[in-house]
Amino acid sequence: MRWARFALNGTPTYGVVEGDIIIPVRGSPFDGWERTPNRLTFDDVKLLVPVVPPTFYACGMNYPEHVREVAEKVGQKPNLPTQPDIGYRANNALIAHGETIVIPKDATDQVQYEGELVAVIGRKCTGLTRDNALTAVMGWTIGNDVSERTWQKGDRTMWRSKNTDTFKPMGPWIETDVDLESLVTRVRLNGKQLIEFHTNAMVFGVVDYLVAMTRYLTLYPGDVVWMGTEGATENMKHGDTIEIEINQIGTLRNPVVREG
Amino acid sequence: MRWARFALNGTPTYGVVEGDIIIPVRGSPFDGWERTPNRLTFDDVKLLVPVVPPTFYACGMNYPEHVREVAEKVGQKPNLPTQPDIGYRANNALIAHGETIVIPKDATDQVQYEGELVAVIGRKCTGLTRDNALTAVMGWTIGNDVSERTWQKGDRTMWRSKNTDTFKPMGPWIETDVDLESLVTRVRLNGKQLIEFHTNAMVFGVVDYLVAMTRYLTLYPGDVVWMGTEGATENMKHGDTIEIEINQIGTLRNPVVREG
Repeated sequence: MRWARFALNGTPTYGVVEGDIIIPVRGSPFDGWERTPNRLTFDDVKLLVPVVPPTFYACGMNYPEHVREVAEKVGQKPNLPTQPDIGYRANNALIAHGETIVIPKDATDQVQYEGELVAVIGRKCTGLTRDNALTAVMGWTIGNDVSERTWQKGDRTMWRSKNTDTFKPMGPWIETDVDLESLVTRVRLNGKQLIEFHTNAMVFGVVDYLVAMTRYLTLYPGDVVWMGTEGATENMKHGDTIEIEINQIGTLRNPVVREG
Repeated sequence: MRWARFALNGTPTYGVVEGDIIIPVRGSPFDGWERTPNRLTFDDVKLLVPVVPPTFYACGMNYPEHVREVAEKVGQKPNLPTQPDIGYRANNALIAHGETIVIPKDATDQVQYEGELVAVIGRKCTGLTRDNALTAVMGWTIGNDVSERTWQKGDRTMWRSKNTDTFKPMGPWIETDVDLESLVTRVRLNGKQLIEFHTNAMVFGVVDYLVAMTRYLTLYPGDVVWMGTEGATENMKHGDTIEIEINQIGTLRNPVVREG
């Protein structure tokens, strides 16, 4: 099942996507829902981020090649993490599929994409086990962890390098039925494919993270966990269009402008 | 004006505090409100965290003595920050005044308090200036940034050291009328005062942070900014009661237990 979130007469509304049709529901996939008799097309609606998370979690350093690339860019030694220490991102930075990534005036040209699988939590849970961890995930979406590398290297925290407004595209929707092991992530800049990787080839997998996290913390419906990215990343500039595709889920596409 | 948030017949409700009386309102201090004819006492209600923030911001390293103490504890050189780089905490960890801080079974004995002033944002804003920054703050409350020092030193991020469930007491309420320069923070463990500091003697003040942050990001109603703590901190153990008092605001009091 595929869940889109969109503005309907100005009100954020969930709908079930069936082919090119969106069926708005009363309620939400997190609280219970029922179909309305309406039928919409994607031309009728403006997609919103598929969920505004109570807490926005993000794995860093979760694919081996990316660990080496980032270490080189920020001038540190590459070290594969030895335990799944989760990080955080901020809701102010979220934008939907189709919305514009805005590079601040004073950013360098090193503003880069990172294509990521996103797990969306469906229920309140703590103490998850390896056997039941995936039952806490209600579905999957796509994230682009846009990063300004000089700020990432020089600042004490990742506040503006990763959480400047518009730096966290997420969408286009949530897909509930996914076979993790057969997912492939592809990143295209202006239509040219830059990288393709086996999405599930993580240093620590979704189950590893959820089990470790819920040993100490409670997850809530709508929390998101961004699973990290693989490979080298390149600069995006004014006028570019960046696409992250994960088969079985969809394509997250955003234009890029530099603040004038 | 003093705003409490509490459960009324199970529903989170805001009320105006006048002496020992709480006057419940329809609406909220963020969206507009009107008084109801009801009058409650603190015995009638269970206080909740005064706001659940869309984004939970926290300054680290924002008082000179604390910078030296923490550096020593985590085995690094003390460096005063040269710019206001904001950090993040997580909503799962929030608890209200009176609720219990639970130390996990496998935590060391180095679980410590940090008494902090908290700015509560009242309106959507970006591009704040030194002249108008404080107009974005609707009020002030108190936070206790509970921290497990061995995890803070050893983990790649501060996820469990600072964001384990119950590690972020906040409250007891929001006070709108505060003279920043005359605030004094006092921390008491089991009634014994451990530290007293001039709350506004920060490395970077509230205005510095809000101006720097909103150069890159938008703040939203209900966002909170924890302003950091001063001085050495000590361990809390099973059976303790920790109190953070800031004059003009109130006292945040929480019992401590270790998981059995």
